[in-house]
Amino acid sequence: MEEVRILEIKQSIFANNDAQAERLRRELKEKGIYLLNLMSSPGSGKTTTLTRVAERLRGVLRMGVMEADIDSDVDARTMAAAGVKTIQLHTGGMCHLDAAMTRQGLEGLEPASLDLVVLENVGNLVCPAEFDTGAVKNVMILSVPEGHDKPLKYPLMFQVCDVVLINKIDVLPYFDFDLQACTEYVHRRNPNARIFPVCAKTGQGIEAFTDWLQTEVRMWKGESV
Amino acid sequence: MEEVRILEIKQSIFANNDAQAERLRRELKEKGIYLLNLMSSPGSGKTTTLTRVAERLRGVLRMGVMEADIDSDVDARTMAAAGVKTIQLHTGGMCHLDAAMTRQGLEGLEPASLDLVVLENVGNLVCPAEFDTGAVKNVMILSVPEGHDKPLKYPLMFQVCDVVLINKIDVLPYFDFDLQACTEYVHRRNPNARIFPVCAKTGQGIEAFTDWLQTEVRMWKGESV
Repeated sequence: MEEVRILEIKQSIFANNDAQAERLRRELKEKGIYLLNLMSSPGSGKTTTLTRVAERLRGVLRMGVMEADIDSDVDARTMAAAGVKTIQLHTGGMCHLDAAMTRQGLEGLEPASLDLVVLENVGNLVCPAEFDTGAVKNVMILSVPEGHDKPLKYPLMFQVCDVVLINKIDVLPYFDFDLQACTEYVHRRNPNARIFPVCAKTGQGIEAFTDWLQTEVRMWKGESV
Repeated sequence: MEEVRILEIKQSIFANNDAQAERLRRELKEKGIYLLNLMSSPGSGKTTTLTRVAERLRGVLRMGVMEADIDSDVDARTMAAAGVKTIQLHTGGMCHLDAAMTRQGLEGLEPASLDLVVLENVGNLVCPAEFDTGAVKNVMILSVPEGHDKPLKYPLMFQVCDVVLINKIDVLPYFDFDLQACTEYVHRRNPNARIFPVCAKTGQGIEAFTDWLQTEVRMWKGESV
């Protein structure tokens, strides 16, 4: 089991977050490290999804995780137990991460030997959507119990995400969740968003997502796909 | 069906939110209006819970609702269809409501003829916990699919809430949710928090909560209970 380190990150002092994010992205490109920003409501299944992704990518991609939370190291312990290089970031009450905070996290993680770093952002559909972290792509998880109307209520989150994972599809029979309506609402916010229905608990559908992710990482590293 | 009005509220210009909140609370006390602040993650069931509460309180208390959202009027339409005096508040991207924003909402709702006003806050476990809205009590909903570890990860939210509704208990058999552990974690943040397990979809457990709420409102209005 990997050791869990906790890093208290400081609020950014940079006014121009977009410029900081672009700079970080350029540096990561030079180093051949793909950064993915994973967002969702609290309890949508970010950590469980990441353990499944890590299982699938073992021996294929070298993956690390930054677990951002206001408090606790529950998620970092779960990821470390899954054998993934992990750092816990404490945001000191902050509801999101910006590019400078993400940079602090990366410096703590020491990703030189990694192909892929996933930032598990603070569970929140509002604030994280407003800040470019420097990630190559944004992925968000919407879980079935939350309801299919969320793209109507949290427009920016769905607008900035390249991929939407519809998680907990194993409980579809017990909820009034309309997958077709949800797909339509997501595409109303972002016509190019890719949607993968998954069940992180059982692993169902995860392969389609990790296939997409593998291609993404290889293209980022300039490898032929 | 009640008409749905949409109010675009402006960000507060007051530095001292606590003083503004105290002032609002005093004014509401004088008018005999009880303000309840309802918070949760997106999709925990705030609106469904409120429709059940409204059903139970019909003919008992005169209730109004302020639906705070970044966008859309989905929730306000649902409440209005349930025959509840409702106003939709658009926060202009803001992730929370403070006391001055709540005051704007109340002025829009015109609650003179009401005993109870519920503010359905923006779906978010982080930012709304940081701002006193002027409400008499804070209530939050944690739904079973979100997991029992949330009080560990969002400490302030559970600390500031007087009541925690554990919603969607009908799906307990399909999730790894430990009600006993959750109760312990909640009381670690706030030993005095009252916990009501409910299922808003079926109405199960709602009566215990509305009994508590009725007593609260009567005490606030100086009536004998």
